[in-house]
Amino acid sequence: MRKLASFYACFLDEGKNEQYQRMKDYIEVDEWKIIERGFNPQYNKISESIFSLGNGRMGQRANFEEAYSGPTLQGNYVAGVYYPDKTRVGWWKNGYPEYFAKVINAANWIGIDICIDGEPIDLAKNRVDYFKRELNMKEGYLKRNFEVGAGTTRVEAEVTRFCSIVDDEAGAICYKFRPTGAEPHIICTVAPYIDGDVRNQDANYDEKFWDEVKKATWDDGGFVQMRTKKTGFEVATGMRCVVLVDGKPVDFKPEPVTKDKYLGCEYKLYVPDASEVTIYKYAANVSSQNYPADQLEEILKETLSRIAEKGFDVMKAEQADAWAKKWKHNDIIITGDPAVQQAIRFNIFQLNQTYTGQDDRLNIGPKGFTGEKYGGSTYWDTEAYCVPFYLATAKQQVTRNLLLYRYKQLGKAIDNAKLLGFKDGAALYPMVTMDGTECHNEWEITFEEIHRNGAIAYAIYNYVRYTGDEAYLSDYGLEVLIAIARFWSQRVNWSAEKQQYVILGVTGPNEYENNVNNNWYTNKQAIWCMQYAMDAAEAVKGADAAKYTALAAKINFREAEETARFKDIIDKMYFPYEKTHQVFLQQDGYLDKEQILVKDLAASERPINQKWSWDRILRSCFIKQADVLHGLYFFEDQYDIETIRRNFDFYEPRTVHESSLSPCVHAILAAKLGDEARAYELYLRTARLDLDDYNNDTEDGCHITSMAGTWMAVVEGFGGMRVSDGKLSFRPFLPGKWQSFSFHIGFRGALLNIRVSKDGVQIKNLSGSETVVMIYDKEQLVKANDELLVEA
Amino acid sequence: MRKLASFYACFLDEGKNEQYQRMKDYIEVDEWKIIERGFNPQYNKISESIFSLGNGRMGQRANFEEAYSGPTLQGNYVAGVYYPDKTRVGWWKNGYPEYFAKVINAANWIGIDICIDGEPIDLAKNRVDYFKRELNMKEGYLKRNFEVGAGTTRVEAEVTRFCSIVDDEAGAICYKFRPTGAEPHIICTVAPYIDGDVRNQDANYDEKFWDEVKKATWDDGGFVQMRTKKTGFEVATGMRCVVLVDGKPVDFKPEPVTKDKYLGCEYKLYVPDASEVTIYKYAANVSSQNYPADQLEEILKETLSRIAEKGFDVMKAEQADAWAKKWKHNDIIITGDPAVQQAIRFNIFQLNQTYTGQDDRLNIGPKGFTGEKYGGSTYWDTEAYCVPFYLATAKQQVTRNLLLYRYKQLGKAIDNAKLLGFKDGAALYPMVTMDGTECHNEWEITFEEIHRNGAIAYAIYNYVRYTGDEAYLSDYGLEVLIAIARFWSQRVNWSAEKQQYVILGVTGPNEYENNVNNNWYTNKQAIWCMQYAMDAAEAVKGADAAKYTALAAKINFREAEETARFKDIIDKMYFPYEKTHQVFLQQDGYLDKEQILVKDLAASERPINQKWSWDRILRSCFIKQADVLHGLYFFEDQYDIETIRRNFDFYEPRTVHESSLSPCVHAILAAKLGDEARAYELYLRTARLDLDDYNNDTEDGCHITSMAGTWMAVVEGFGGMRVSDGKLSFRPFLPGKWQSFSFHIGFRGALLNIRVSKDGVQIKNLSGSETVVMIYDKEQLVKANDELLVEA
Repeated sequence: MRKLASFYACFLDEGKNEQYQRMKDYIEVDEWKIIERGFNPQYNKISESIFSLGNGRMGQRANFEEAYSGPTLQGNYVAGVYYPDKTRVGWWKNGYPEYFAKVINAANWIGIDICIDGEPIDLAKNRVDYFKRELNMKEGYLKRNFEVGAGTTRVEAEVTRFCSIVDDEAGAICYKFRPTGAEPHIICTVAPYIDGDVRNQDANYDEKFWDEVKKATWDDGGFVQMRTKKTGFEVATGMRCVVLVDGKPVDFKPEPVTKDKYLGCEYKLYVPDASEVTIYKYAANVSSQNYPADQLEEILKETLSRIAEKGFDVMKAEQADAWAKKWKHNDIIITGDPAVQQAIRFNIFQLNQTYTGQDDRLNIGPKGFTGEKYGGSTYWDTEAYCVPFYLATAKQQVTRNLLLYRYKQLGKAIDNAKLLGFKDGAALYPMVTMDGTECHNEWEITFEEIHRNGAIAYAIYNYVRYTGDEAYLSDYGLEVLIAIARFWSQRVNWSAEKQQYVILGVTGPNEYENNVNNNWYTNKQAIWCMQYAMDAAEAVKGADAAKYTALAAKINFREAEETARFKDIIDKMYFPYEKTHQVFLQQDGYLDKEQILVKDLAASERPINQKWSWDRILRSCFIKQADVLHGLYFFEDQYDIETIRRNFDFYEPRTVHESSLSPCVHAILAAKLGDEARAYELYLRTARLDLDDYNNDTEDGCHITSMAGTWMAVVEGFGGMRVSDGKLSFRPFLPGKWQSFSFHIGFRGALLNIRVSKDGVQIKNLSGSETVVMIYDKEQLVKANDELLVEA
Repeated sequence: MRKLASFYACFLDEGKNEQYQRMKDYIEVDEWKIIERGFNPQYNKISESIFSLGNGRMGQRANFEEAYSGPTLQGNYVAGVYYPDKTRVGWWKNGYPEYFAKVINAANWIGIDICIDGEPIDLAKNRVDYFKRELNMKEGYLKRNFEVGAGTTRVEAEVTRFCSIVDDEAGAICYKFRPTGAEPHIICTVAPYIDGDVRNQDANYDEKFWDEVKKATWDDGGFVQMRTKKTGFEVATGMRCVVLVDGKPVDFKPEPVTKDKYLGCEYKLYVPDASEVTIYKYAANVSSQNYPADQLEEILKETLSRIAEKGFDVMKAEQADAWAKKWKHNDIIITGDPAVQQAIRFNIFQLNQTYTGQDDRLNIGPKGFTGEKYGGSTYWDTEAYCVPFYLATAKQQVTRNLLLYRYKQLGKAIDNAKLLGFKDGAALYPMVTMDGTECHNEWEITFEEIHRNGAIAYAIYNYVRYTGDEAYLSDYGLEVLIAIARFWSQRVNWSAEKQQYVILGVTGPNEYENNVNNNWYTNKQAIWCMQYAMDAAEAVKGADAAKYTALAAKINFREAEETARFKDIIDKMYFPYEKTHQVFLQQDGYLDKEQILVKDLAASERPINQKWSWDRILRSCFIKQADVLHGLYFFEDQYDIETIRRNFDFYEPRTVHESSLSPCVHAILAAKLGDEARAYELYLRTARLDLDDYNNDTEDGCHITSMAGTWMAVVEGFGGMRVSDGKLSFRPFLPGKWQSFSFHIGFRGALLNIRVSKDGVQIKNLSGSETVVMIYDKEQLVKANDELLVEA
């Protein structure tokens, strides 16, 4: 679930045949850079999200180093460090969790106060004569140039910073400025600092989440060690600084400044007019997630010494190299449409900044490290949208760690199910979580959007299908699958009236229906999960009977009895069906609704999530994201193309796509059905969602998980990529506006570049292992380090 | 809706055949008094609710006059004075109201600090040697006797107070105490005060709701005038005091004490050991609801002078007279079961304390003036439960004012419907309101529990049927009825599949189902409202064609077109029906649920609202209060007895009665069906709800509106009272444990006392007009001031 739409979004009505239009047109198009030229304080919080930096361990919104008194959302996030904020609701419902765990704003490590002749630089107050902000996606850094004036003084500045993906607990800043004034000398005060006295904008009871543990100042810096309330995570955040005037290091020690949770170093400079002042600030966050709390100070010092010794330029060069390696494996090149090229790179860049897959305790929050919304927690987005991206663009271990994250939380998923009345090892994974505990508090979602359990099982299937790593099933997967199957087998009930099994009181992925009966998608997931659990059990039994026996004993799997029930349910599950249109019915009673198509809905009524009261949305036929179609996407092999077409033709015209996760799946299906124009139109709805602030909510953070959906639309939609029988297959087409597009796919040891152009489909094998792929259903052998062209 | 159960309640499982047991057995049984003997600080907040005083204009929890540092919920409420507290929810849904208007805790007028030798009397700190609290329902006052000791001193006290129903802006206190100590003289400080610096326990953002406007002290008292934030209501609360030692007024003026929002008079007394100190405190609240704000001070002074002049004893005697008059018209006498006698009087007493019907801007909050919960706002409880009580026990004007309350809010009900997408004068009355604006914020209730609109129409029907006041329809009723009918005609939609009209996405009175389709009760209410609106239109047209024409023009009633639609909907409304049991089906899909009876539900699982998560409750077949049965109660004339029996036999065993409003209606139906034992058992579930703190939530306030349901169970259940064709009819039976019961009924100018005993049914006509009643379906003429007996 993504509450984007229902909560904040403003997905403007484009109309069916209108051209795609950019909403906020202030980001300059460039294939490798995100550029803001001219200062747009009204968009500052949006830019802070878009220009965010991250390295999987820490993330930093594009806040300014120097003081800024205008609207801003400060954000430095340290992966895995969260605070359980006490639940706030209007009306309590039994079963609600006590807390919402959220990744929280940590100590500010970027701050550098600068005063010129006693006046602070503050772009909200100064006259801004020039401003340019640039996110270099190729090399992974943020650069800002500006010129400000106040009275007779004037300052030109260039600030470069990055979160290092080589030293992933560290960030570095190079802040250069050149003051000019009326006098031959200018007094500049330069004060880099670490400030732990931060708050979250999203705090249910306006509390601060951090206590100070200790702090110290050094000759060239210092640190603050903070501890989260309740959870007791400790994070030491420190800095070392070098200040130069006209290239020469200053020859005195700065004045230390300490306040509660704060330490700074003040350099008072008396510099000749038009001198260049340079501050290098090396900073790091080290966390008790990774080290004993009492060693953090020492480890922080070592980290800071190491990076300060390397120096800014070396670090930056290493950063560029590391990004170049990433891009080699996951770049998508689109020729003929620079705005779309920029967008897809931005999406890939942000996904890589968010999750690197090195730590199975981490996951991908809907906003990644770019904002506070959704608490930085894990949703089914990860399994349904992000897994395909990481499977194809990163090492196998990355997706495996996403799976292990859930495996390790199985105990809590079983506890969660127990709280809701289930037993015997049934697991219900939480709707929203940090550590496996349910965090969400909206009954129709928390308790009823149980399809998430299906996505978690599906991700295991997807991973094994893609990688061939059957051992994962024996080691971890099967245990999760049985727990999920048990949940479904208890969640169904026998309808005496229908003489079939039913699933009552659920919310499907289409959140514009709540508490419905027999949601087709959910019922489908339920029986699929039970079947897959049994298939996986057979596979594990075949591969390693002893392991199977041990597992069955461990989890008290009464195979005969339990699988008999699974089979009975699979055989006798009820699925609502609509005979006239011959489509699967979204849920019981859907056809009692007044059937109106989105095209017949007045533009003034849209987006319905802003124009209509919630009950009206619920009783309308309009669909936020079509769950039947999502089911057909997941289980496409089970349905013939005409079935898929009938359902697409029925549901797509009723879908308002007021979820950022909706259009990509529809785009993939449209592509499959050969409706290239529709596929492209649907793709454009998500491609630049954040760059153009399409939903009017990017200031809260970027839509990280839906970025993976955009990638899917290109690769599985336009590229027509699928995996079956251990082979990749492609049925690509070239969107009309594009000259070509190409993407990289890693698959079982091979690295392929697939380029689709008017000439045909070119496959380059960039690896040393040959591989067989299907192109338009024909088998093609692509030899190691070779390429081939399948002509159009 | 009463969230009692789903939110706080602890309705313990009695089991089907167990004896009714009292939950908290600390209230002494007495036919006319509520007595607490011995101090129970652990129950203090419960007692504060139970021993509450009120007079329709103001209400006062049984807080102590002197300091009390133990657990307490302070409550002085001034009718109609409310604060719009900003909505607090976890997840916002479109359409939620911005504010929840709540009657709020106003200035403390009862406070009298007393210090003996410098030590304050504080029952939480003193040794309490004796304690008795007594609510005299016959005469309408609260008396408290206690003896406390601290060190060598000892104090005996007797405190009597009441909210005057004669001077209904005033209250009076007589606080007598006798200190004894080791010394021949004792220093006593006596400090009556008014304290406006109060807060609500229920404040969404911990704000204080009042600002001070002005205050003053007088020789023997003073006042504080406060203004509510946002709403700007002003209330002046003042006091005049007389202090006597051994019967002689003190011969000095007290020391004035003023603080922010506070004023007091301090009397320092140096009294001989064992003297009797008496404080008379005369207090009043006058509000800008009733007078111009700038005259409040003057009016308050006049009020205080008037009552002080009368003196405490005269006021108390007047109070007893006034209550005697009330009891003459509404007492119920039950012989053979003193606990039940006490309970029914308590219910009648509290209802009369809450609402006197003199002001059509006031209404009956679910907790009346006994607590903060539910904000003191209006729910459908008023129309569905309270109207029958006031119709039979009070002047016609009282119920008429309840109806006018809604009439005056029609504009806001139309606005409310507009917000939800309705048009052309359709009205949806709010779920919870103070001034007509919707206050509630739970989508499945606020937007979906639309059956309240039906109850509001039904109350008009009930009033006209009872009183014969057809003119009400022309003057006010029809306008409301058409607006409500318009709502229903727009709220239905045509189901192409069913080829009938359906109503989707509702919550019925049974709140253990949310967002269901075709709730039988709601569909029934919808067509009934449309039919009644048309019948009323015809009646008005017949009675006063010009008035009808004027009204139709005013509200743009396109009669032909609109009634054609009403009729079409009435003809083609879909009602779910269950063929096997031949019962009306609660809603679509109800039989898909696993059918379990309450008797087969383990006691450990109950109450399900405390043991089960919300989703589990929703998908179970268990019913909080049976809406089909409520519909059969409302519309019993339309159904034969066997239909009612089949539905009762089907639904009652599935009903957990976890709403305080549930058992009374079931009791009435059981009585109708001749199941006397079941009727009695169901009656007992509500009779002493508060006295025994059955639901473990009386500390929040008494369940005022459900008290009316208890009255209904006696009069309509055991008494079998109905009204049809302008006549009262009775089909009474005598519960086995009782020797007799009798009740008073006012009906169209006649006042009847109906006494049911083993001898038969005795009817006394206490009025000067003869009347015809039906007893067991036989017509009986009861002459003026005469009586008759229909033998058993």
